Amino acid sequence: MFNKDTYISRRERLHAMMPEKGLILIPGNMEAEYNYPHNTYHFRQDSTFVYLFGLDLPNMFGVIDLDEGKDYIFGNDVDIEDIIWMGPQIPLKEKALEFGVNHTAPIKDLYSMIKEAVQKDRQIHILPTYRGRTEIMLGELLEVHPQKLTPFISTSLRDCMIKLREKKDALEIEEIERACAIGYEMHTTAMQLAQPGVSEQYIAGVIEGIALSKGKGISFATILSQHGETLHNHDHSGILTTGKLMLVDAGAEANSYYASDNTRTIPVGGKFTSKQKDIYNIVLAANEKANSMFAPGITNLDCHLAAAKVIAEGLKSVGIMKGNIDDAVANGAHAMFFPHGLGHMMGLDVHDMEGYGQVYVGYDDKIRPVDQFGTENLRLGKKLEEGFVITNEPGVYFIPALIEKWKKEGINHDFINFDILEKEYLDFGGIRLEDDLLITKTGADILGERIPITVEEVEAEVAKGA
Amino acid sequence: MFNKDTYISRRERLHAMMPEKGLILIPGNMEAEYNYPHNTYHFRQDSTFVYLFGLDLPNMFGVIDLDEGKDYIFGNDVDIEDIIWMGPQIPLKEKALEFGVNHTAPIKDLYSMIKEAVQKDRQIHILPTYRGRTEIMLGELLEVHPQKLTPFISTSLRDCMIKLREKKDALEIEEIERACAIGYEMHTTAMQLAQPGVSEQYIAGVIEGIALSKGKGISFATILSQHGETLHNHDHSGILTTGKLMLVDAGAEANSYYASDNTRTIPVGGKFTSKQKDIYNIVLAANEKANSMFAPGITNLDCHLAAAKVIAEGLKSVGIMKGNIDDAVANGAHAMFFPHGLGHMMGLDVHDMEGYGQVYVGYDDKIRPVDQFGTENLRLGKKLEEGFVITNEPGVYFIPALIEKWKKEGINHDFINFDILEKEYLDFGGIRLEDDLLITKTGADILGERIPITVEEVEAEVAKGA
Ligand SMILES: [Mn+2]
Ligand SMILES: [Mn+2]
Repeated sequence: MFNKDTYISRRERLHAMMPEKGLILIPGNMEAEYNYPHNTYHFRQDSTFVYLFGLDLPNMFGVIDLDEGKDYIFGNDVDIEDIIWMGPQIPLKEKALEFGVNHTAPIKDLYSMIKEAVQKDRQIHILPTYRGRTEIMLGELLEVHPQKLTPFISTSLRDCMIKLREKKDALEIEEIERACAIGYEMHTTAMQLAQPGVSEQYIAGVIEGIALSKGKGISFATILSQHGETLHNHDHSGILTTGKLMLVDAGAEANSYYASDNTRTIPVGGKFTSKQKDIYNIVLAANEKANSMFAPGITNLDCHLAAAKVIAEGLKSVGIMKGNIDDAVANGAHAMFFPHGLGHMMGLDVHDMEGYGQVYVGYDDKIRPVDQFGTENLRLGKKLEEGFVITNEPGVYFIPALIEKWKKEGINHDFINFDILEKEYLDFGGIRLEDDLLITKTGADILGERIPITVEEVEAEVAKGA
Repeated sequence: MFNKDTYISRRERLHAMMPEKGLILIPGNMEAEYNYPHNTYHFRQDSTFVYLFGLDLPNMFGVIDLDEGKDYIFGNDVDIEDIIWMGPQIPLKEKALEFGVNHTAPIKDLYSMIKEAVQKDRQIHILPTYRGRTEIMLGELLEVHPQKLTPFISTSLRDCMIKLREKKDALEIEEIERACAIGYEMHTTAMQLAQPGVSEQYIAGVIEGIALSKGKGISFATILSQHGETLHNHDHSGILTTGKLMLVDAGAEANSYYASDNTRTIPVGGKFTSKQKDIYNIVLAANEKANSMFAPGITNLDCHLAAAKVIAEGLKSVGIMKGNIDDAVANGAHAMFFPHGLGHMMGLDVHDMEGYGQVYVGYDDKIRPVDQFGTENLRLGKKLEEGFVITNEPGVYFIPALIEKWKKEGINHDFINFDILEKEYLDFGGIRLEDDLLITKTGADILGERIPITVEEVEAEVAKGA
């Protein structure tokens, strides 16, 4: 488990890396309002705050004074009346010490500190924001309109945080494996429940309950649908029908907030049709291809393109694609079936650090984003390094609107057999298979016990619930 | 189920009731950010919006033009590119018709409409806000700072909405009963899991999973703790121990967002001690007393005080309180043990309409809030009417910080035996028993099947899971 040295060391490294002076201001999250001010969602601490300051409580601010080399947590202690309602409380001063922070003060002192810093023209570094309530609070602190925070957003802070967070240490891997263990139970439970007549909402609720009973809850809104071809799909209103594929993309957060993120695709009732099996094994081959390539020094863009090639070859072998496969991939023809990226970083955020700006996390000076349909959606393209945790999630989808569009617009007609698609695949759905991996010194390890993934393994798991 | 006439009639009644002219502006909710902009909590529509306009989608605005008698929904349709990712979409125009709204337009038209209304000095009515993102958006629309929305908050709109929403019709009761059925399963499951060695987090997760698998999820953050005496307690870190009481205050939202809210207190392992049984039966008697009194025409303040008296009498019978019981209640001595209110309205919000301002919902010109410790926390004091849905939730708690404070400050020493408390009850915990009720023509009905509540019923339910 993390201890106070974990947090001291993280902040010391940040101090050492920051090329600029001034104050770093890291707002912890406030409660997120649900349907009225006092009815709130589950509290979720800000990832940057919890990474640097550890404290898992609302209404806290972390400050790092780069000139004086001092770290602060600002927050209000509850008063004596509150203790009647909230039980005995540990003072902030004491709680902060658990994370190696020696300086604490009430929020009003933060206002004076920031006011003084602004008057003295000291640089104030913040990261991009994502919650309205935080923006309003920062606006108040910095005495600007909540929609005018951009001048405070610090590219040096952003870049240092990415450098710090992108490589996971052994303790972080332990936490991610905790999340993966919860994810394992969620996915195998979903497999066992994948029986005709069961509702998608029911299964989604049960697996979210597992996430809540073993950790903080889900790491992102569960995708659980017989319409796997609809990629941005959070509808759970369907009832399972034999012959359909149920795609489940779901993950958990451990109590430390570290995430898991896995996808499996399951034949309702437990038997793949032979057509489903063919497409399934193409996706699995793409997953295994990337799996075999991941290693320090290789770019994730190359892994993505290699997986794309396996998909294109596979689809050619079943008559859906045609022509020269290298040309097909170069032209992005595979992207009609695999229109998203191979994967992303994972850590304290399921798309790790996405809030900092995806392009800064996934790309660098050497590897730039590719401006082509499909590959443009690859969140991580740059060279892999030991300690990165990434996802491997190729997929094949038959998206009626996209098939129709490409057919009508004459896109990649040399590489795609539209006739077969329209005759046989418009109601197929989609398949995605996603594992989480740690890049090691020489390759990559799947994190957690691998969730059943071969045709035989998945069929056997569904059978357990029949 | 609700149909378009439900919504047309609600809006027509609002039109008819509003004593002022101008535009009513009801912002639907946006997605609530979790840990970065695209990772959001479960979507929760705003209660007022869903009550008047029905539509359960983010980024919508409802407008009621009180001068022209027209209703609008503003929202953006997804464009053709989005259909590739989101699947086939029903246009807003068509969706709005399901709720009887004939006028729809994109958000940009709302900006022009509001701009014009401001220029023409038309009154714009909004309700109190609760989400930062909504405040920022309203600030943009109304061209004021997001923290300067107060002048637009309309007391006439607030009062009309309370009049409309406080009486539930048959279809609403059906929805609340759906939520109660989910709550029944949550609570009986918690009882069966109340075995030594099980973690609070595990049980809380399992019952939240039930709420998610059968409806929208929980109606408020579950309280599940062996420290029932800590009233504002969302900690689930304990492990169940024989001899302790586990207090579970939890409810569900049906898919329509209507809520349930119940509390039960369960002996870990399934057997109450005789001391626990004594206190438990005092709380149950208070619950039953209020139960027998609820009827149109009686004030909830009187029901609260009658329950308080039953508690005081009961505590006197076991030697914890002493003296004249009417005097004890008049002096608020019972409130050391029962420091909160008897209950609150329930509907689309678990504390129905609390966001409008609790005092406007629970009190009126005739019945004003009572400024005495304990009773000051009663959310609903006014006269009950047929169609109200309320909770009945008396409790008895032994709060060490409060016992110590009253002892030290000499508060109510004539009515309380501090010696016994300090010797025998400091580690007792707390008991609360909460049902949901509909005020009928002549009395009140408990909504949903009553969750096991007698000592025998609760012990039998726990035994099922042993
Ligand atoms: Mn993923
Ligand atoms: Mn309640």
